[in-house]
Amino acid sequence: MSSIPQRLAALRAAMEAAGAAAYLIPTGDPHSSEYLPDHYNSRAYFSGFTGENSTLVVTRTASALWADGRFFVQAEKELAGTEIELMRMGEPGVPTVEQYCADALQEGEALGLCGLTASCKLVRSLQKLLDPKGVAVKTLNLEDELWTEGRPPLPATPAWLLPAEYAGAAPADKLTRLRAKLAELGCTAQLVGKLDNLAWLLNLRAMDIACTPYAMAYCFVTEGEAVLFINAARLADAAKAELAAAGVRLAGYDEVLPFLAAYSAKQTVLADPDSVNYAVFSALENNPALTVKALADPLLPMKGVKNPTELAHTRECHIRDGVAMVRFQKELEERLAAGEALTELTVDEILHKYRSAQDKFLTESFGTIAAYGPNAAMMHYHATEASHAALERRGFLLVDCGGTYMDGTTDITRTYPLGPLTEEERLCYTWTLQSHIDMARAVWLDYCTGQMLDTIAREPLWLHLLNYRCGTGHSVSFVGNVHEGPHALRPVNQVRFEPGMVVTDEPGVYEGGRLGIRIENELECREKETNQYGRFLCFEPLTYVPIATGPIVPGVLSREQLDWLNAYHRAVYEKLAPRLTDGEREWLAAKCAAIGA
Amino acid sequence: MSSIPQRLAALRAAMEAAGAAAYLIPTGDPHSSEYLPDHYNSRAYFSGFTGENSTLVVTRTASALWADGRFFVQAEKELAGTEIELMRMGEPGVPTVEQYCADALQEGEALGLCGLTASCKLVRSLQKLLDPKGVAVKTLNLEDELWTEGRPPLPATPAWLLPAEYAGAAPADKLTRLRAKLAELGCTAQLVGKLDNLAWLLNLRAMDIACTPYAMAYCFVTEGEAVLFINAARLADAAKAELAAAGVRLAGYDEVLPFLAAYSAKQTVLADPDSVNYAVFSALENNPALTVKALADPLLPMKGVKNPTELAHTRECHIRDGVAMVRFQKELEERLAAGEALTELTVDEILHKYRSAQDKFLTESFGTIAAYGPNAAMMHYHATEASHAALERRGFLLVDCGGTYMDGTTDITRTYPLGPLTEEERLCYTWTLQSHIDMARAVWLDYCTGQMLDTIAREPLWLHLLNYRCGTGHSVSFVGNVHEGPHALRPVNQVRFEPGMVVTDEPGVYEGGRLGIRIENELECREKETNQYGRFLCFEPLTYVPIATGPIVPGVLSREQLDWLNAYHRAVYEKLAPRLTDGEREWLAAKCAAIGA
Repeated sequence: MSSIPQRLAALRAAMEAAGAAAYLIPTGDPHSSEYLPDHYNSRAYFSGFTGENSTLVVTRTASALWADGRFFVQAEKELAGTEIELMRMGEPGVPTVEQYCADALQEGEALGLCGLTASCKLVRSLQKLLDPKGVAVKTLNLEDELWTEGRPPLPATPAWLLPAEYAGAAPADKLTRLRAKLAELGCTAQLVGKLDNLAWLLNLRAMDIACTPYAMAYCFVTEGEAVLFINAARLADAAKAELAAAGVRLAGYDEVLPFLAAYSAKQTVLADPDSVNYAVFSALENNPALTVKALADPLLPMKGVKNPTELAHTRECHIRDGVAMVRFQKELEERLAAGEALTELTVDEILHKYRSAQDKFLTESFGTIAAYGPNAAMMHYHATEASHAALERRGFLLVDCGGTYMDGTTDITRTYPLGPLTEEERLCYTWTLQSHIDMARAVWLDYCTGQMLDTIAREPLWLHLLNYRCGTGHSVSFVGNVHEGPHALRPVNQVRFEPGMVVTDEPGVYEGGRLGIRIENELECREKETNQYGRFLCFEPLTYVPIATGPIVPGVLSREQLDWLNAYHRAVYEKLAPRLTDGEREWLAAKCAAIGA
Repeated sequence: MSSIPQRLAALRAAMEAAGAAAYLIPTGDPHSSEYLPDHYNSRAYFSGFTGENSTLVVTRTASALWADGRFFVQAEKELAGTEIELMRMGEPGVPTVEQYCADALQEGEALGLCGLTASCKLVRSLQKLLDPKGVAVKTLNLEDELWTEGRPPLPATPAWLLPAEYAGAAPADKLTRLRAKLAELGCTAQLVGKLDNLAWLLNLRAMDIACTPYAMAYCFVTEGEAVLFINAARLADAAKAELAAAGVRLAGYDEVLPFLAAYSAKQTVLADPDSVNYAVFSALENNPALTVKALADPLLPMKGVKNPTELAHTRECHIRDGVAMVRFQKELEERLAAGEALTELTVDEILHKYRSAQDKFLTESFGTIAAYGPNAAMMHYHATEASHAALERRGFLLVDCGGTYMDGTTDITRTYPLGPLTEEERLCYTWTLQSHIDMARAVWLDYCTGQMLDTIAREPLWLHLLNYRCGTGHSVSFVGNVHEGPHALRPVNQVRFEPGMVVTDEPGVYEGGRLGIRIENELECREKETNQYGRFLCFEPLTYVPIATGPIVPGVLSREQLDWLNAYHRAVYEKLAPRLTDGEREWLAAKCAAIGA
């Protein structure tokens, strides 16, 4: 295997040959995916840094890597001994990637980058500073040229269509809806770049990205047809037939750029610059037959409101997921009680055993977070073979996990007391539960946006001068990515909530070095009642799994909060009990026992 | 006195002579004031309609008057027998004023209006529909030409300067701050059009508008001087001297247009199209020496954050106002108990007796709302000699009132039980109190805007599928207008709260024909604490007057809400008791007694 210095040297030689004075490698795939196929992890190959959300810039004489606060320590370690300078994002005096490039390059020089892995948005923000200096952006693809040894192949897992009995609508119906929406927006076509939106549109699924059941593909939708750019060999015949019946023609994944360059019919094409990559966006713009409208992808809000079939399946799959969670917790408690030595890694093993045994299980919906004690203060902690904690008989174990099934996607967090708790642990747990309940039982008029609801969840923690540095909750796809848009419970989200939207409710307290607490359910937005004041909306839980009552400090929860919790536990028992053994039922009844003031 | 048909005939003759095919009369004065001097009530003169927020349009053959929902009944009555068609604003099929004008006028014709009483914003929204049709807007002033009989004169009450010991800053200091802000915004000058912003800038006060201690004036501020357009005879010599010392030159109120037309030095002038009238804005735009920047008036946010001197005075004046409120309530109760026949009008009399006896009293801050029983469901109800209710020994009396003193402005609402209450009355009162308390005791991170805090106040009512069709609260001026910006607790307000802002907290329940409940305090925004999560803010009450505890349904308020209420009543007693007689103190102690769960 080559070394980082060798790889940087090769990169500089290729830059020289291609006429680029600097080269930028972002963290990205051609579809602006949140999680990447390993094939696209070029930034790690050239820098040695294996974290997330990072950018590498290499000039003739220097190189720099941007990392965010979560990864400072890891980046220092992984970059040690290389020439690469660590840029701590957000720290005073640290330039942005754009500023650094503008400072490093002279008039007449060019910055190279791969147009497929850079989003249109990134390139535009670079050009904003480079254009005035007379510095060009040059699309090259030195990653493919130079990274051949040991490179994971392009993902090509079997692709299939989610049956309409699960999806609630066939691809033909969804294409009809999209075309009507495009007409409303004054467009005759769309280039769909994001995998989750494309998956929703054609009910297309595969397993190209870990825990994310999507296929690498593009789709060009016009009034008359849709062209799906995908390796056709991956598709079963039945899927091919269904797509053909829906007017979907197949073309090779790599044909997208030549296809768009050669396209000759006049179209007004919607393309979302936030998610269509720069190479594809440029191909659209450079074709004189095409007029490009840079608009937000209309598929996202369509996908964000689940249809009745998706909702019915989601409710059912959460019951099975709840059964797995109950079995997991029971086994964990019993083995701990028996004195067995368990670690954070054991948690993942037990969870996988029970979850994967459930009907219709496809994959975990994300890498399990099992964080004991102070580890839980790190919001994105993942235990590894090399570094993980043993479970002791005190404090909290935080478990954030979920599954993707043929009939839905789950995301749940519980914080389990493993023994005696400190007063701080008990209080923070109780206040977090108040936040969770206040959001879950909220009722609001339908003009409310995510940011207006978000304050309702935070207020119980704010009253104690606490806060969590993340959203209260995110949308969850149906048999798809666990984080989606357009709505969210966040201080900046301006999307109005609508019936059929699914969102997580996951407030928490994170005190560095001491504790991490989070309690998370998925919720479904429903209409409560329409009266003279307007349309009132509310949430209904999708997740039914006991919430530990032992840590609750008496006298803190209001009567209404206690009523909610007791009613929730009655519903948990009613929904799960029929699917459990006698022993499990007895165990669950104890967990679901009503508590008083 | 002429009749409405005669006035409309005269208007049509003048329109014809001036070359206007239609004429529009808005509700407005030259300063976009919320409440108008009677001199400017031309719309009432020509239409006969005496309500608020209305527009009259007269064409050669038709005429129409727009009224909002609060005034439908009144407008029907007042327009009966005239040719004027009532346009019910917001009802289906009712055109907007702009649409109506665009439909009524042909290419080449002109719509006349007075440029002084129409805001720049109104004219622009008219032009948006009229320009494409080739219809011109012509500024005439037919109101002044035709309305001479019985017209109230232009207000010209004595004008004076609020001493810096109250205002906390002299005009010279405020001009320096404004000039720095203008430089930041790339401007060298500002035309100040709104009376409240001008009053704040120069500490100028008068009594030109009922309950609103301002003087009709404009100010043109440049780097070197400020020209105050006002009838100089109104100003005392001391005020003239102080203004002169601050570099403020005086010019006649009517000289503003010729002054701006003749101005020859180059300036980049900030003018807020929302509050500068069309005639003045056009005079700025038509002068080639001036470059106009249409920006929001920077004085509004300056004025919205009170300085420490203003805050200290405001706190003190609320104590005196509280003493008046206590004496009012005690007398009301005693006279009712004695069997005296009282009406809504008596309430205003008693209030005025006690409030006006307080030190530094200037005027009521708005017309008292004393609304008994179902009358309180009308949010803007005002009892009159012709129409008012007698107070019975049952149900609620809602009293919304306030005073302007030399040292502050108050605005308070209490809802008093006069005898037995229905279950609905008691529940709605209790839920309103929960809303009031949740807002008053809220703690939040300083990124929160008015719309994000507003949901916290509404949630307790939303949980019972109730709402109030108005904001939770508005900013209050210091010795000025009782409704000001820029911040507010409203579903649409996007201004972040800052320490030093004053706002009312006045949730309510209004059930047409049955009941109206509102509980209102003024609150001051303060910093609570800054820690690792950021800067937490909170409110502190300014108003200290007992809140009736009798109507509270037991078991509904949370422990924290009860704790807040009991602590509030302890503070009320501590602050007011030293200023009361023995008898009053005893009465107050009973009103402030702690209540349990």
